Amino acid sequence: MVDVDAAARARVARLADGIARGERRALAQGITLVESHRADDQAAAARLLELVAPRTGRAIRVGLSGTPGVGKSTFIEALGQRLLADGNKVAVLAIDPSSPTTGGSILGDKTRMERLATDPRAFVRPSPSGGALGGVASKTREALLLCEAAGYDVVLVETVGVGQNEHAVSAVTDTFVLLVAPGGGDDLQGQKRGVLELVDLIVVHKADGPRKDEAKSTAQHYRVAGHLLHHGRAWQPPVVCASSLDDIGLDDVWAAVLAHRAATADTRDARRAAQAERWLWLCIESELVQRFQKSPSAQQALPAVVDDVRAGRVSPGRAAQALVDVLLRP
Amino acid sequence: MVDVDAAARARVARLADGIARGERRALAQGITLVESHRADDQAAAARLLELVAPRTGRAIRVGLSGTPGVGKSTFIEALGQRLLADGNKVAVLAIDPSSPTTGGSILGDKTRMERLATDPRAFVRPSPSGGALGGVASKTREALLLCEAAGYDVVLVETVGVGQNEHAVSAVTDTFVLLVAPGGGDDLQGQKRGVLELVDLIVVHKADGPRKDEAKSTAQHYRVAGHLLHHGRAWQPPVVCASSLDDIGLDDVWAAVLAHRAATADTRDARRAAQAERWLWLCIESELVQRFQKSPSAQQALPAVVDDVRAGRVSPGRAAQALVDVLLRP
Repeated sequence: MVDVDAAARARVARLADGIARGERRALAQGITLVESHRADDQAAAARLLELVAPRTGRAIRVGLSGTPGVGKSTFIEALGQRLLADGNKVAVLAIDPSSPTTGGSILGDKTRMERLATDPRAFVRPSPSGGALGGVASKTREALLLCEAAGYDVVLVETVGVGQNEHAVSAVTDTFVLLVAPGGGDDLQGQKRGVLELVDLIVVHKADGPRKDEAKSTAQHYRVAGHLLHHGRAWQPPVVCASSLDDIGLDDVWAAVLAHRAATADTRDARRAAQAERWLWLCIESELVQRFQKSPSAQQALPAVVDDVRAGRVSPGRAAQALVDVLLRP
Repeated sequence: MVDVDAAARARVARLADGIARGERRALAQGITLVESHRADDQAAAARLLELVAPRTGRAIRVGLSGTPGVGKSTFIEALGQRLLADGNKVAVLAIDPSSPTTGGSILGDKTRMERLATDPRAFVRPSPSGGALGGVASKTREALLLCEAAGYDVVLVETVGVGQNEHAVSAVTDTFVLLVAPGGGDDLQGQKRGVLELVDLIVVHKADGPRKDEAKSTAQHYRVAGHLLHHGRAWQPPVVCASSLDDIGLDDVWAAVLAHRAATADTRDARRAAQAERWLWLCIESELVQRFQKSPSAQQALPAVVDDVRAGRVSPGRAAQALVDVLLRP
């Protein structure tokens, strides 16, 4: 079915076996394979996903987001320890909207989630956002499927930021958790309606020390906003106060995740089907651009057009039309 | 040159004249036209951009970003008033990473920048981010060019968030300003290296009242980080403390923008040429997807493929390859 040669097929089969046995090294190699932009790697990755497909779909897929400084890493570290203690294998995929050139956060990702990252029952992996403008972690879905195939019971998909990232995370997970800081109005104003509409559970984090009371009133703000936005829907997103520092509320958070899971059990297949359709469109977009880049006719026309666009002789929109004409009418 | 009929040509010519005369209504209609997804509107928009092209390129193009709660709207309101008082016409384009369905911020954009929005010398316009996953404000560049043609001396392009949005804003502006809040470490950790690399000027906002000292130490943090990241480059991003509330530092901010402008005068054309090339790729992507959606062969194949993907019989990646094959081999 897939155009990979015999040696590559054997290599992919070994990788699939390793993943099925829960080998972290095989899982890491598999994710590297699905993230590769090379044509032969992509064919091999497609084959790998077919091989592991029967083992996928069983994990609790949780998305986690929040603005910088809200303490996402600390929270995941604390929640992850709790899940491990309960006997779960936990995988964390972090979508990193990093620089297209250098990547990485300024203080380094290595210092984040230190305990989780070194625990043999956990798997922590940053997932590049695909670079360039408007990139989403187009391979996060595939990475998540590989984690499931490797037997991880819970897959946490984490992202920073406000806007597109949350949509990407919500597009691959069953339950979407938004972390907010105590502080009310400002933060609520910044949260876009679109993001709050995606949310299945809100955690007011850092609800400790002098911020405890503020956290309670912030939670009340979000309850009102959530009630407005989710009015008439079957699931009303609960708002939970939590502190990773004081170890408060983490059980409540997980109980709420499981409650959402139970409440949406009947519709989970439909949600995942809609996600797959959405992902299809992202793949179509990426495939189109790759084919364009590889097309000899487009490659031939490109340099002169780029010159014209750079010099302002042709607008980018007009030039794009002409180039795509070249590709589609060979 | 452009495939629009005579009536449409006349309408576009009238629009171009109105924009050249600085009519806000014509400008608003022009932006609506470039934002339209209809094929005839797009042809008209391309024609409009050709007509106004000679009048573009003269504005001071400033990008502004920062996480929610940092006070972007308040800052733009205050800076805008100052620029108006100096005799400038000011346009503000706000890239809104809103919900693909409903859009808009939860407290409503109408209450933001109230004075600026009602001043006849100013023009404030939200720019939808293009919807769906990974959308950038693909039309922001065209909207900016129309504002220039309408005689606006300063165009501020504002965006919320961390990640892709900043790249989009930096891809259409000459000077990129990052607003940060006093508070140091947490926030700096959240700021991705990639964003700090884009920055031409950092403003520590809300440097008022009890936060004044904290703002100073935050500024020092950012100076160190900026120095590390921009080491060896011609322009070292200054860090300025400002308060819109106490009217502090706004003159310093604008002086820094003008200093950056002077320091980069020689390279501005090169920067804009690189931006145009980058924008070309975004246009190619968007054009490819539109052609795909309109293609009869893809339309015919799509329903069965979508069913297979939804049911998990085919992976989205594999299905996308097959669909694009259909489009490219007619």
